[in-house]
Amino acid sequence: SSGTPEVIVPGASSYNGLNLVPQMGWNTWNAFHCDVDEDLLLTTAQQLVDYGLRDLGYNYISLDDCWSIGRNLSGYLVENPIKFPSGMPSVIARIHDLGFKFGIYSSAGLFTCGRYPGSLGYEKEDAELWASWGVDYLKYDNCFNQGQSGTPKLSFDRYNVMSQALNQTGREIVYAMCNWGNDDPYDWAYTIANSGRMSGDIYDSFNRPDDRCPCTEAPGCAWPGFHCSIMNILNKIPAITSRTMSGYFNDMDGLEVGNGGQDDNEYVSHFSMWAINSSPLMIGTNIGTISPANLAILSNPAIIALNQDPSAGAAIRKWRYMVDPDDYGQGEIQLWTRVLDNGDTVIALLNAGNMTRMMNATMDDIFLDQRTAGAYRAPPELSQTWDVYDLWANRMTDQEAGAIINGTSGAGSNATNPRFNATATSYAEGLRNNATALFGSRTGSIAPSGTFSAEIARHSVGVYRLRSQGNTSTRKRDEL
Amino acid sequence: SSGTPEVIVPGASSYNGLNLVPQMGWNTWNAFHCDVDEDLLLTTAQQLVDYGLRDLGYNYISLDDCWSIGRNLSGYLVENPIKFPSGMPSVIARIHDLGFKFGIYSSAGLFTCGRYPGSLGYEKEDAELWASWGVDYLKYDNCFNQGQSGTPKLSFDRYNVMSQALNQTGREIVYAMCNWGNDDPYDWAYTIANSGRMSGDIYDSFNRPDDRCPCTEAPGCAWPGFHCSIMNILNKIPAITSRTMSGYFNDMDGLEVGNGGQDDNEYVSHFSMWAINSSPLMIGTNIGTISPANLAILSNPAIIALNQDPSAGAAIRKWRYMVDPDDYGQGEIQLWTRVLDNGDTVIALLNAGNMTRMMNATMDDIFLDQRTAGAYRAPPELSQTWDVYDLWANRMTDQEAGAIINGTSGAGSNATNPRFNATATSYAEGLRNNATALFGSRTGSIAPSGTFSAEIARHSVGVYRLRSQGNTSTRKRDEL
Amino acid sequence: SSGTPEVIVPGASSYNGLNLVPQMGWNTWNAFHCDVDEDLLLTTAQQLVDYGLRDLGYNYISLDDCWSIGRNLSGYLVENPIKFPSGMPSVIARIHDLGFKFGIYSSAGLFTCGRYPGSLGYEKEDAELWASWGVDYLKYDNCFNQGQSGTPKLSFDRYNVMSQALNQTGREIVYAMCNWGNDDPYDWAYTIANSGRMSGDIYDSFNRPDDRCPCTEAPGCAWPGFHCSIMNILNKIPAITSRTMSGYFNDMDGLEVGNGGQDDNEYVSHFSMWAINSSPLMIGTNIGTISPANLAILSNPAIIALNQDPSAGAAIRKWRYMVDPDDYGQGEIQLWTRVLDNGDTVIALLNAGNMTRMMNATMDDIFLDQRTAGAYRAPPELSQTWDVYDLWANRMTDQEAGAIINGTSGAGSNATNPRFNATATSYAEGLRNNATALFGSRTGSIAPSGTFSAEIARHSVGVYRLRSQGNTSTRKRDEL
Amino acid sequence: SSGTPEVIVPGASSYNGLNLVPQMGWNTWNAFHCDVDEDLLLTTAQQLVDYGLRDLGYNYISLDDCWSIGRNLSGYLVENPIKFPSGMPSVIARIHDLGFKFGIYSSAGLFTCGRYPGSLGYEKEDAELWASWGVDYLKYDNCFNQGQSGTPKLSFDRYNVMSQALNQTGREIVYAMCNWGNDDPYDWAYTIANSGRMSGDIYDSFNRPDDRCPCTEAPGCAWPGFHCSIMNILNKIPAITSRTMSGYFNDMDGLEVGNGGQDDNEYVSHFSMWAINSSPLMIGTNIGTISPANLAILSNPAIIALNQDPSAGAAIRKWRYMVDPDDYGQGEIQLWTRVLDNGDTVIALLNAGNMTRMMNATMDDIFLDQRTAGAYRAPPELSQTWDVYDLWANRMTDQEAGAIINGTSGAGSNATNPRFNATATSYAEGLRNNATALFGSRTGSIAPSGTFSAEIARHSVGVYRLRSQGNTSTRKRDEL
Repeated sequence: SSGTPEVIVPGASSYNGLNLVPQMGWNTWNAFHCDVDEDLLLTTAQQLVDYGLRDLGYNYISLDDCWSIGRNLSGYLVENPIKFPSGMPSVIARIHDLGFKFGIYSSAGLFTCGRYPGSLGYEKEDAELWASWGVDYLKYDNCFNQGQSGTPKLSFDRYNVMSQALNQTGREIVYAMCNWGNDDPYDWAYTIANSGRMSGDIYDSFNRPDDRCPCTEAPGCAWPGFHCSIMNILNKIPAITSRTMSGYFNDMDGLEVGNGGQDDNEYVSHFSMWAINSSPLMIGTNIGTISPANLAILSNPAIIALNQDPSAGAAIRKWRYMVDPDDYGQGEIQLWTRVLDNGDTVIALLNAGNMTRMMNATMDDIFLDQRTAGAYRAPPELSQTWDVYDLWANRMTDQEAGAIINGTSGAGSNATNPRFNATATSYAEGLRNNATALFGSRTGSIAPSGTFSAEIARHSVGVYRLRSQGNTSTRKRDEL
Repeated sequence: SSGTPEVIVPGASSYNGLNLVPQMGWNTWNAFHCDVDEDLLLTTAQQLVDYGLRDLGYNYISLDDCWSIGRNLSGYLVENPIKFPSGMPSVIARIHDLGFKFGIYSSAGLFTCGRYPGSLGYEKEDAELWASWGVDYLKYDNCFNQGQSGTPKLSFDRYNVMSQALNQTGREIVYAMCNWGNDDPYDWAYTIANSGRMSGDIYDSFNRPDDRCPCTEAPGCAWPGFHCSIMNILNKIPAITSRTMSGYFNDMDGLEVGNGGQDDNEYVSHFSMWAINSSPLMIGTNIGTISPANLAILSNPAIIALNQDPSAGAAIRKWRYMVDPDDYGQGEIQLWTRVLDNGDTVIALLNAGNMTRMMNATMDDIFLDQRTAGAYRAPPELSQTWDVYDLWANRMTDQEAGAIINGTSGAGSNATNPRFNATATSYAEGLRNNATALFGSRTGSIAPSGTFSAEIARHSVGVYRLRSQGNTSTRKRDEL
Repeated sequence: SSGTPEVIVPGASSYNGLNLVPQMGWNTWNAFHCDVDEDLLLTTAQQLVDYGLRDLGYNYISLDDCWSIGRNLSGYLVENPIKFPSGMPSVIARIHDLGFKFGIYSSAGLFTCGRYPGSLGYEKEDAELWASWGVDYLKYDNCFNQGQSGTPKLSFDRYNVMSQALNQTGREIVYAMCNWGNDDPYDWAYTIANSGRMSGDIYDSFNRPDDRCPCTEAPGCAWPGFHCSIMNILNKIPAITSRTMSGYFNDMDGLEVGNGGQDDNEYVSHFSMWAINSSPLMIGTNIGTISPANLAILSNPAIIALNQDPSAGAAIRKWRYMVDPDDYGQGEIQLWTRVLDNGDTVIALLNAGNMTRMMNATMDDIFLDQRTAGAYRAPPELSQTWDVYDLWANRMTDQEAGAIINGTSGAGSNATNPRFNATATSYAEGLRNNATALFGSRTGSIAPSGTFSAEIARHSVGVYRLRSQGNTSTRKRDEL
Repeated sequence: SSGTPEVIVPGASSYNGLNLVPQMGWNTWNAFHCDVDEDLLLTTAQQLVDYGLRDLGYNYISLDDCWSIGRNLSGYLVENPIKFPSGMPSVIARIHDLGFKFGIYSSAGLFTCGRYPGSLGYEKEDAELWASWGVDYLKYDNCFNQGQSGTPKLSFDRYNVMSQALNQTGREIVYAMCNWGNDDPYDWAYTIANSGRMSGDIYDSFNRPDDRCPCTEAPGCAWPGFHCSIMNILNKIPAITSRTMSGYFNDMDGLEVGNGGQDDNEYVSHFSMWAINSSPLMIGTNIGTISPANLAILSNPAIIALNQDPSAGAAIRKWRYMVDPDDYGQGEIQLWTRVLDNGDTVIALLNAGNMTRMMNATMDDIFLDQRTAGAYRAPPELSQTWDVYDLWANRMTDQEAGAIINGTSGAGSNATNPRFNATATSYAEGLRNNATALFGSRTGSIAPSGTFSAEIARHSVGVYRLRSQGNTSTRKRDEL
């Protein structure tokens, strides 16, 4: 053909080469809102190290809204000197020294949501400033956007200005769009960003419908709102699941684990479903007051390994049935599955009904996609025997977690009972090496054409990794 | 960081520094439509003074459509010389002399809704003229807009032209957008206007559905229409409640109190729910024929104080249940709450069902937002005892109101039984000073984890201010 | 104020001064589709004269699609020489000579719907050509529009090009937009056109739902489609009724009366509801084969007078109740009312249910708008006694209509039993003069607070004109 | 009139003169996804010849995604040298030599769906390259489109760039848009393309709802998705059926026949409903492993003849009734009809319910459109007697198909029992000549006003061609 033989490589698996698996870290908003300062950041960072969370992969400290006091006469943002008396560069340097990357916040509007100056029209100045400070991550909100929305093109163009500005700094900065799913960013943001919020803001409730979060579907939602429950957000994901891919993730919003609005089963469900769907995992609670149970949830490497799996995909909801409604009129059960990079398949039996129940997953349901993928031969998965590993079986005990919090366990990166250390060994490598911590505990197997059953408590989830005894499963490109 | 240390202040709490609490006043449309002239304005202004309404805060005289007869050859609008023989500047001066501000009307279209000349393309000329006349307020309608709508951007751009024109006059002019919620102005108008209509036009019915007002949700409504009932408009507010803030208010349209289409309970509900949601309170009836009962409704300072509270927020609908449908197929009950500036919480138990019923509000429901706000500690509100003040308990008697109307009470600003005088003492100051008139009457208390119950009549509402006996409640920035 | 005292008059009641009441006439499409030629036009015109239809007001001959064969090298359209061997100017001149105005057809697209050349990009040339031919009317369709739609602005801009081109010809040409309600033209077309289709194409069925006409609401309809039944179109009107006004009418599409798909009651309902809603009344059948019964329907001057009433408004649907569903799952009854120019009120009791039933209209329902119009006094209508005139009482007998068709009655403009002659006396004048033919037959009266009842047959309508015995009703500007 | 007498012909029946009946062929995606290479293409092409499929009309070899490795320094795409070691021009030449046309694939975005380079911004280069290679067909996808969507105009403009680029090559290239129905292409793509996908991607299931395909209507669908079942796609067609016309076809996506996810009755239904609706018929299975039964389905010339009928229209769904729901909650029966070019009418009785049932089609339903088309005379169809031909009656036996696959039948173009050879005789000519293979087998007749009844198995369809004994039916232009 025409032209020279040199070939330009096809589209990389990330628009800027970053964030090939979902970001993990800690963000100020859910627990502290505007009540932020440098002590909070630095204290929390140290706690994350001490509790072993950094080494489990939570390695971003993400400062949210309310950090600035305006622009100086040169047009550059100025941090609040009362909240950040050391100056932001110094704070960031200390965060870096603790082994974290640092995230900043702004809005693609005239103001941030807290009515501090936004970056619309100042993208270049702000990106340059942040790069000069050593910023590694930007959460970019959607408030006061001067009506520049209403078609994908209007939103794309607005968010793309910052994308270009970040690129031009030369610094590697992960770009986390936060436009609440407006104009369906999952359809267009892969080429300009590393993650994109797909719903209104989360609140700390498992399934209570709230008038302020009116939509139940993500695509075409006219009003994302806020006060969206775990189940509300989760139920918006299935339609857009194909748009999660390496380098761009559907952000289901920061975690509420630890904030007191849900019971233990509900937090387990919340954390599991966020992880399995490759949502960013940003802790959103006060680490200083975290309970042992909640630390244990956040510290399950077998669940985190799903999130950090190199497949970088989302799960598929295979079925959903309405069951006995609770006081909010809610009640449902769901089966989710996901094919992982090493050929394993993970299944999640989610019981969002009001009572404990037996739940079943048939091989036909689990491998539905293989059955209907246009195959011209019987899918081999159906004729294999699969070992079943319960990924919550090895959850840290409250006693153990309490000891970590009390500093009496020698936990963290130097624990006598060492946990998974992602700083030393990536999840990808751990998975390749079959690291014990990442595979839960074997609880049985499913024979060809068989059914897996488990009793699942009210508002809880069972998460199981299926490993083929023959391990000969094939993989195929996900359809778009 | 780069740049000089001088700092530009962050976003003010109003785009133009005006209207930090909702506008109050009287508007010609609901009662008089096009039947307006200078006598009506001046007579009504004097009545508002005489009946004490001006001093309760109703201090705008807002002239609506049908005041002009066209443009002169210079392109400037000309008032109708038959309706306004004194000329508009003279009329406005006399309105000012009576202690009022003056509002004018136009449309962001080729014509006004009454097919008089609109301001589209004449924004600069019209703003200049109005400023020269001494106009303080503009209601800016949406008729005949040449199809310049369909995305937030198209509507923002169109309405922004007038916003800029008003600013450039140098005169302080409150800008009240009236685009009926088209293209979701609550999402973008804060930065260019002081209030924005969020629905089609009101009509004087409590809950009758009318084919001309087809939408039941505000966001994404394809056809706002008109003949929207009180309940129709109210039920569109909960999703957009977060967009009410100091300097920009969701305008639920002018009041129908006094116009004869609703009974006393219904007008009490209408007035209370408008007030609690920080809607502008524009009286829309003929003051000259107002009944004592209706004057009493409009004159309740304890309700008005909710509207004028410095918190400048809206209420939250905590729950809504459908009950026995009436002849229109309608029937529901609702709980609304709102945190006020001084730490009090107001609750409204709205019975839009067809019969009297006992209604309950639990502490868990009242303080739901505190429970689920990402708190890392138990919300203190739940462990406090709250005194309950019935804000309708001290409603003026018909006898007293009749005496005011008859001029036999010495009421108004010189009443022997003096009412709240906002001209002399702002509501903010009155609240700080615990002015008796603003707090209704104490009727009981709610113990920690308790429930408040009250019998509420058909189509009525109970409005109660909760004051912590310890008064140690904390406050947080409202989420966006 | 500034400027000179000369005053430019406010918005006229039509953008171009034309069509102050709805157009009436005959159009080729519904009966003949593409099977048109000059003989058909001229023969039909003569028949309209002979049958008295021209003098009843049907004075447009509107040629629809398929008349051209393309453009010549100068870019001008050329009529099909086989269909129009005399040439279009000659045909039009003869149409004029018969006392008619002449209407042409094109599309705001690359092609017409029949894939003949459209006018997009040729607006100036085409308008000039038509003006030179003596064209008085343009039906302007929406096919093959190159995707220039999706917001009101895109549609407005496209249709406005032709509006400007027609104006620039200097000839008076009524502009009838036919974009099927896309992008909600009722909201923006008043300033550029004389009527606008508000739904997909009609078909000759009373109430059968058809998959090709998927919408049941007009505003925001994503796909107008075609094969829309009488009831489908009628039920799309109530929300947009306020947008009908002198000079711009919501076009419900051409009449199907006479085409054989409905029974006599259904055609009576169809014709009545089109008339009362100020839809254009374009006959769409083969006059040469029309039955006496259908001629009688089209010839009822008391119904036509509603359509041609100077009030130029639409009717209001006061209520709609679902009743016993038929084989199509359809069944409903409705009350419509409309205030007329002379203070009369017309009511229509529409029985779209599957069996004959008694229907009631209360004074409260009839005068609902007066009761809730922001009145500060009791509406006088409720305390009056109203005489009731049945507007179908004097329907021409089949015998009489048959004689007209047979040419044995001396009907038409020279009838011995003269019918209403709008060519000689406009409906407005006839109404002023209380012309007998326009008022049906008195059948009773309604006392204050009373109820009117009538037995209405399956799929039929009772249309009654109420005249106040005191005749003192007031009128007010319709709200927008 | 003005201008010279030379006349430019009206709109051709295709924007580029191509694809007057739907394209047929074989496409790589459904069975092979990215697992493609030149051997697959060439082997399959030879099999299509050997099995007689080419000569039945399947004469496009359409290579889908994943064929390139990027762009060279001149900006031209480069084929993957491992998959296509001979180079694309050589491969294409050999495809041509086997009597096929060749189709290529790209996306109107930054990347293809498989994240290979897309053509957005490179339309001219890519069209030129493909033309130089001898490409005859382009499937043009919608992934990574940089948000250039949201109104018909945005999508039209984007897809039109490639349309123009293809035209400018001078080569005849069929342009198959694949934007999944976004922005309603059926409303605007006729003037720039030859076919347009109208839904999300198909998957191999008859009627299972899948969360990834959330829409049930085509117009205005906010999220086309994928994993759309046969019934999901079919049920999106009725509203847009009028937009199928010669030169532009609604593409219901490639066939799943042969891929194993449906039973024989379901594949018969799938193939029949695609054919009758003039969808492109692109085989999407592995020909090398095809079963005799599936080969028999694809090889029914009487069904293909419906698809290739010169009328080039779609079918009309006359009714749809919900029946006994199955485990997926699905269950329905439907009647479809279509008027063919020679005056025959085809009817399809589709039983998508869960059990065998008798189904009826009345003359009134079959000829509904004739009854309601604005006719001014009784439709002659109702008074005729129609012979009924069962178009599946002569389905090839499994034995015969097996012999073809085994190469023992001498089938294909040289069969002893010759099948229809569209390479030699077009379907249009075959229909004109009443070729036996195209008319199935006569099973009865329908008398005037009669009803046709047949027992239809679960998830199956009966397809019948009605021929008038008098054969005097008239035809009319389809409405738009």
